[in-house]
Amino acid sequence: MTSPTPTLHFEDFSEGDALAFGEYPVTEAEIIDFARTFDPQPFHLDETAAAETLLGGLAASGWHTCAIGMRLIFDGFLAKAASLGAPGIDEVRWLKPVSPGDRLSLTGKVTAARASRSTSDRGIVTFAFALVNQDGDEVMTQVNSIMIGRRPEGAAA
Amino acid sequence: MTSPTPTLHFEDFSEGDALAFGEYPVTEAEIIDFARTFDPQPFHLDETAAAETLLGGLAASGWHTCAIGMRLIFDGFLAKAASLGAPGIDEVRWLKPVSPGDRLSLTGKVTAARASRSTSDRGIVTFAFALVNQDGDEVMTQVNSIMIGRRPEGAAA
Repeated sequence: MTSPTPTLHFEDFSEGDALAFGEYPVTEAEIIDFARTFDPQPFHLDETAAAETLLGGLAASGWHTCAIGMRLIFDGFLAKAASLGAPGIDEVRWLKPVSPGDRLSLTGKVTAARASRSTSDRGIVTFAFALVNQDGDEVMTQVNSIMIGRRPEGAAA
Repeated sequence: MTSPTPTLHFEDFSEGDALAFGEYPVTEAEIIDFARTFDPQPFHLDETAAAETLLGGLAASGWHTCAIGMRLIFDGFLAKAASLGAPGIDEVRWLKPVSPGDRLSLTGKVTAARASRSTSDRGIVTFAFALVNQDGDEVMTQVNSIMIGRRPEGAAA
């Protein structure tokens, strides 16, 4: 469970709910640090090498972009939720480069909320998220599902 | 382009090709470091808190697992390939916890290799990857596509 006293439970998420939160400032140092460890392709590592590629300049690894999205999800609501983890990701689209100096925010919509068939203490909430830069451009979209615990009987809503 | 003189081009990937490479040693320090920055849920941060959750112990963030997979892809073949980046991910399944001390390797299969319809200098190769631990258990599966440049005319095969 994410929080010892979560205030958000499965019952708090309904199909059609809209979410918006952020922002995450992207630094050149973090882009390079992430790339050096996990994705050392030249366009994620070095501004000069990157300028000659189709990205036109240093850009964050797509996986770094996903990790930033996760941080915004955590700070936005998951820290307060009875999160039980996630089985996976249904789709990720990297639409535009994420550059040093970008400020990213996340918008989301609940596309489904269904009770677990196998375990009565939780439900599965599916989100369509979009990571948006300071110019309003979507840099990534993502569809994923998170398992969230039901509100215990007697707990305050 | 990943390598200034790539030796692997689109023509080197065919449907049905099998790949295998690794290994990546997972440390507790890296699990906690990644989680602190991007996914600070208690089961990714703290062994004691994690022991009380359904994961049963400290486990890597799913996004950390994806990033480790990326590193194995890079070291396995992408560093030598005319990579032009990736449009996104079609599916990720996190199947088992990734724990401190795990040694991960990657297996993969080319499920499709098709010429780009819009740009004649490249093709799109789709892979089904599985990240496997030292016990032979699949901890993650993933389907993704990578754009890879065609071999320039006259270049050595």
